[in-house]
Amino acid sequence: MFVRNTWYVAAWDHEVTRTLLARTILNTPIVLYRRQDGRPVALNDACPHRFLPLSKGELIGDAIQCGYHGMTFDCDGACTRIPGQERIPDTARVASYPVAERWGWIWIWMGDPALADPDLIIDIPQLATGAWDVCRGDKMYLRGNYQLMTDNLMDPSHVSYVHRSTLGGSGEAELAVKTEVFDGLVTVSRVVPEAKPAPIFQALGNYPGNVHRWQVYKVVPPSLCIVDTGTIDSRGDDWRALDLGTDSPEKNVTIPDADERTVIYLRGYDFMTPETETTTHYFWFLLRNFGLGDKALEKRVIEQTTMAFEEDLVVCEAIQARVDNGELPRQLNVAIDKGSTQVRRMVDRMIAAEQNLAAAE
Amino acid sequence: MFVRNTWYVAAWDHEVTRTLLARTILNTPIVLYRRQDGRPVALNDACPHRFLPLSKGELIGDAIQCGYHGMTFDCDGACTRIPGQERIPDTARVASYPVAERWGWIWIWMGDPALADPDLIIDIPQLATGAWDVCRGDKMYLRGNYQLMTDNLMDPSHVSYVHRSTLGGSGEAELAVKTEVFDGLVTVSRVVPEAKPAPIFQALGNYPGNVHRWQVYKVVPPSLCIVDTGTIDSRGDDWRALDLGTDSPEKNVTIPDADERTVIYLRGYDFMTPETETTTHYFWFLLRNFGLGDKALEKRVIEQTTMAFEEDLVVCEAIQARVDNGELPRQLNVAIDKGSTQVRRMVDRMIAAEQNLAAAE
Amino acid sequence: MFVRNTWYVAAWDHEVTRTLLARTILNTPIVLYRRQDGRPVALNDACPHRFLPLSKGELIGDAIQCGYHGMTFDCDGACTRIPGQERIPDTARVASYPVAERWGWIWIWMGDPALADPDLIIDIPQLATGAWDVCRGDKMYLRGNYQLMTDNLMDPSHVSYVHRSTLGGSGEAELAVKTEVFDGLVTVSRVVPEAKPAPIFQALGNYPGNVHRWQVYKVVPPSLCIVDTGTIDSRGDDWRALDLGTDSPEKNVTIPDADERTVIYLRGYDFMTPETETTTHYFWFLLRNFGLGDKALEKRVIEQTTMAFEEDLVVCEAIQARVDNGELPRQLNVAIDKGSTQVRRMVDRMIAAEQNLAAAE
Repeated sequence: MFVRNTWYVAAWDHEVTRTLLARTILNTPIVLYRRQDGRPVALNDACPHRFLPLSKGELIGDAIQCGYHGMTFDCDGACTRIPGQERIPDTARVASYPVAERWGWIWIWMGDPALADPDLIIDIPQLATGAWDVCRGDKMYLRGNYQLMTDNLMDPSHVSYVHRSTLGGSGEAELAVKTEVFDGLVTVSRVVPEAKPAPIFQALGNYPGNVHRWQVYKVVPPSLCIVDTGTIDSRGDDWRALDLGTDSPEKNVTIPDADERTVIYLRGYDFMTPETETTTHYFWFLLRNFGLGDKALEKRVIEQTTMAFEEDLVVCEAIQARVDNGELPRQLNVAIDKGSTQVRRMVDRMIAAEQNLAAAE
Repeated sequence: MFVRNTWYVAAWDHEVTRTLLARTILNTPIVLYRRQDGRPVALNDACPHRFLPLSKGELIGDAIQCGYHGMTFDCDGACTRIPGQERIPDTARVASYPVAERWGWIWIWMGDPALADPDLIIDIPQLATGAWDVCRGDKMYLRGNYQLMTDNLMDPSHVSYVHRSTLGGSGEAELAVKTEVFDGLVTVSRVVPEAKPAPIFQALGNYPGNVHRWQVYKVVPPSLCIVDTGTIDSRGDDWRALDLGTDSPEKNVTIPDADERTVIYLRGYDFMTPETETTTHYFWFLLRNFGLGDKALEKRVIEQTTMAFEEDLVVCEAIQARVDNGELPRQLNVAIDKGSTQVRRMVDRMIAAEQNLAAAE
Repeated sequence: MFVRNTWYVAAWDHEVTRTLLARTILNTPIVLYRRQDGRPVALNDACPHRFLPLSKGELIGDAIQCGYHGMTFDCDGACTRIPGQERIPDTARVASYPVAERWGWIWIWMGDPALADPDLIIDIPQLATGAWDVCRGDKMYLRGNYQLMTDNLMDPSHVSYVHRSTLGGSGEAELAVKTEVFDGLVTVSRVVPEAKPAPIFQALGNYPGNVHRWQVYKVVPPSLCIVDTGTIDSRGDDWRALDLGTDSPEKNVTIPDADERTVIYLRGYDFMTPETETTTHYFWFLLRNFGLGDKALEKRVIEQTTMAFEEDLVVCEAIQARVDNGELPRQLNVAIDKGSTQVRRMVDRMIAAEQNLAAAE
């Protein structure tokens, strides 16, 4: 069971071209391509005749021609040609899915097409400000349910154990986190005052002494995650005086650049798209506020982040493997699960609402 | 569910020797070997004692000895020795299956042995005429149900899409085909008049101009397929004047060699033997009426045909993979499916008749 | 269904260290390690929080810390720390299993811990006598149910077929074996008088002429097997005069060393631990009464025995594969199955008794 009336990332923009791309999303085989004018198209990837994947066929202009008998479909999924017969029955069609291109990604709507408003796609205003540079990750692949990764990203405490050598620090696991539920999103946040910088932040910021660190995890259900992690030279000042902005509903941490302290600020966008119940496409990029234009730095940030995410994949895949083996007791929920529990409840309510809607029709 | 009261090809003659051959046919493990006098034997490939495949044992004269405890069975499947005891119970036996050697193949009858008349094996009279040479294919293997391949072979229109670079030509897909149902077989045929030769025919015939092409597809259910494809120098003559014989019930196209036109005639025998519901043994050879005795030509024909068949396997396996993923709608049937639909109906009736027979006993 | 109230070998002693060892036993994932004082510990290998295998975490003193969120458990499975909260609920625990170290192995009790008396572990008094040397095998792994191997080890007749080139001899298959049922064990035995030595015994004993050979197979259900095989220079004497002791209930064959005949005596301990219903851990060592201290000989004995056991694995795995393919008739039982049938009945009774016990509680 998945939330269907929502925008999922289907692919990186550069993945969708005039060469047919096959990708399974929410258990549904999809073929993705671009019209001659560049606009993306998503169709169900099975010819209704004998079910050969259309992705094994070829593009004829904007239409897609099946590689078995030449049956041809337009961008809306309507059949326009059946070799060997004149009449084309109304049933000769494949499902087409609303798609939109934004923030470097191709987004897909797997639910009711009438509700597919591109304005519902999450806003990333920083991309237009010029104050941030993008570090684009490769598409990653999780052999696990997508919620294992939203659980992971709603929970700062795992950093000390899973990412000890990359993002972690000492003693943080015991620091209280603040869980807040807003309309359509959940945040978990904490500030680590007067601490040693984490290994990768020290490598980037070269701090002479202690720093204040902040971590803000935001999940927009079902599966969009935004993770802010930052470090600011403390100079012994109380972090509350710095007005980091972590109290605002948007959790857009203000960068106090006025006093020229070294601030390393990374905002990660981690967007999970379910492939099946037990596998997930994982799209991500990071915004950074430092070293703008520095390609070598960008490469280093991407490498380090990839390494950290791979540590997460190992954990989530081990859990999925255990779950697949069956016969497990009820999970034990503890204090640190407040955020992930809230997200799972929201997802459950979204699915229930969609089913009520469908039943009412 | 399979048709059982029919002869299936179990193996090439050269595959069955004094070395035990294990092969699964209609979901049943079979061990094949030859008696000392050369006659083939087929037994169920599981010792009734502890189910070790008998194919892991060894031949003792004409009998087969289990590799675990030495239990020994004769060519009829009767146990002739149980080490450690004198008495051999009547239940100590394995099923044996009627087999026959014909046309270079070992045939097996998986149904009621009382009905296994070798005269029911399909006749291939051309093999004795000296006017044809044989191009023997390797055994091929389809990761798909055998009916995906009979569908394929009942449908000339796929040639233009699947085999564009080998057998296909332009514009043929729109040509009408004639579907005819006879007693125990279905044919689909068409003539392509005044056309350019297909790539492999041109390579073989070196035609100066246009040709008439014919394609006759015959299926003897459940799974024997005979495919005639031929090309004759048109010299601008109407093809109907050439009396190609495509109207005869046997579809044995007459070769009009009297006037010395270049005629390239290939008759393919494609015999599918189900291994399981989703895998198939694929045996084939081609008869050719040209280049008799030319071994280099024979090699080239086999290579080109193998290439074309591999194009079919790719399509059929992609369809099987999609079907295995489940939750597909009803298939859309169109005009070109007339032949394959008739074949599937015949197969369904054969299975139903066998079950009624079994229920009546 | 497994017998649970019994000691199974979990691991070789050298496998269990301060590095966490993950191993599945009776379908249950287990993590094994040693306390700082060397005593072994076995816990269920899934954190009750999110089911990450604890074997992916690390040891903190004698406790084990989960690699995801740092939840920590003591050697009894009780949670001692939950990062982020003070209170530790009673439900925060993992199952711990009684373990004992004996005869070079770590034993585990997967049933009712109250019944786990280490004195129930099988006795191997020879290990303390100095008259025997140990040839330790590598842990082997069977892709089959453990009872396929107890069947195998209850049945001397397979030796002539499966182990022809290693342990087998001619004509033995027809020799009667004696099956005896004692309280909690079954034996199958036979003596081969005045025979040629088996290949590996001849290689070890270099006999000038015929020998008497004895084979005594003992199974202590569910899955401990002891196999005595020996060869004594016959010198033409009747073997009954040699008092080999095969009639004693314990089947401890006496070695008649008084008259200085060459006696090659191997006592194999083959202990099967079910991993799942279709896979088995196979632990074994051999005691030998000859060539004491000879390391080159030890290596040779281990190599030859490993080779023979691999012959058994091939057979058992082929049977398991056939069983997995389903739809098999009832097995045909014959005279040589008397021992294995008795063992299977004992195992069935043990499982039934445990279930009655559990139902009564």
